[in-house]
Amino acid sequence: MEQIILGIDPGTRLMGYALLEVEGNKAKLITMDVLSLLKIQSHELRIKKIFETTRHIIDTHHPDFLAIEAPFYGKNVQSMLKLGRAQGVAIAAALARDIPFCEYEPRRVKQSVTGNGAASKEQVASMMQRLLNFREMPQHLDATDALAVAYCHFLCNYGSIPQATPKTKKKSTSWAAFINENQSRIIK
Amino acid sequence: MEQIILGIDPGTRLMGYALLEVEGNKAKLITMDVLSLLKIQSHELRIKKIFETTRHIIDTHHPDFLAIEAPFYGKNVQSMLKLGRAQGVAIAAALARDIPFCEYEPRRVKQSVTGNGAASKEQVASMMQRLLNFREMPQHLDATDALAVAYCHFLCNYGSIPQATPKTKKKSTSWAAFINENQSRIIK
Repeated sequence: MEQIILGIDPGTRLMGYALLEVEGNKAKLITMDVLSLLKIQSHELRIKKIFETTRHIIDTHHPDFLAIEAPFYGKNVQSMLKLGRAQGVAIAAALARDIPFCEYEPRRVKQSVTGNGAASKEQVASMMQRLLNFREMPQHLDATDALAVAYCHFLCNYGSIPQATPKTKKKSTSWAAFINENQSRIIK
Repeated sequence: MEQIILGIDPGTRLMGYALLEVEGNKAKLITMDVLSLLKIQSHELRIKKIFETTRHIIDTHHPDFLAIEAPFYGKNVQSMLKLGRAQGVAIAAALARDIPFCEYEPRRVKQSVTGNGAASKEQVASMMQRLLNFREMPQHLDATDALAVAYCHFLCNYGSIPQATPKTKKKSTSWAAFINENQSRIIK
């Protein structure tokens, strides 16, 4: 039976969102976009907009699960408060429709979709494009970030073999190096 | 027509809440309590609990307005993120029922209910007890803090004369001091 995962990359300026359809161990992109909050000055209205948009996305696509990115640590306390609020409101929109959610750290998302926990937004976007075959790159990479969270949830929960390109193992160039790298193969 | 104000003091360990009934320029306490989250380990479950409890309070008492305290600035970024999330979830529970909300800074709440923006939790609680005549002080002062936010909204929006005891002006003890304090009254 198909399942729909809603991925959200929360923010107070732009909120990325993406919908991924999963059937068996196959995932297919439904849609992705960003909600821009740049023109809304008041914090109260931004929060309201995040809530209403998330609810609207849910009521349109009926996702079975919300995978949401945890905001970065390390910014200043004011921005963390606002980010936490933005994230909480998006989560609550899912809870209001009895949709379970799970939070993923940015590092884990990057690690699971690209194999590198420190990958750039561009690398994440390019990997998502290869994995899900969409033609045009969206204007804001918050959308592909949201898609990556949904895809990370898919990889973690639907038993799929990660499709990310494995790192090619560097070949040893000398016997000395080979022996050094393969201590367990030496018959003592 | 009577109006009901829900006051919330958000927190990740204890969430205070209070319901205030307003008719004309009179306010009456309906109930106040705290939601304890201390026994819930998982953040996801805490968030869910905050959302469900706030929704339950709303569906039981049908408030017309949510007055919510803004978390303090100045703690570390991790705790600010969690506090922001807790606050966002409580706000969203109101938005889910089309209830408008307003956020109040702690300093403003204390200033409007006690006349002192740096008042302690105990001073706030004791003033609330005098103003609303409740017999027993609640076990956790997060409940009276929530009541103070609701009362602050009442004072700011229902045209009531602040009932807080005004600070008595220190009397001058000499002509020199009197003249010094009343420059504008000197006929030049």
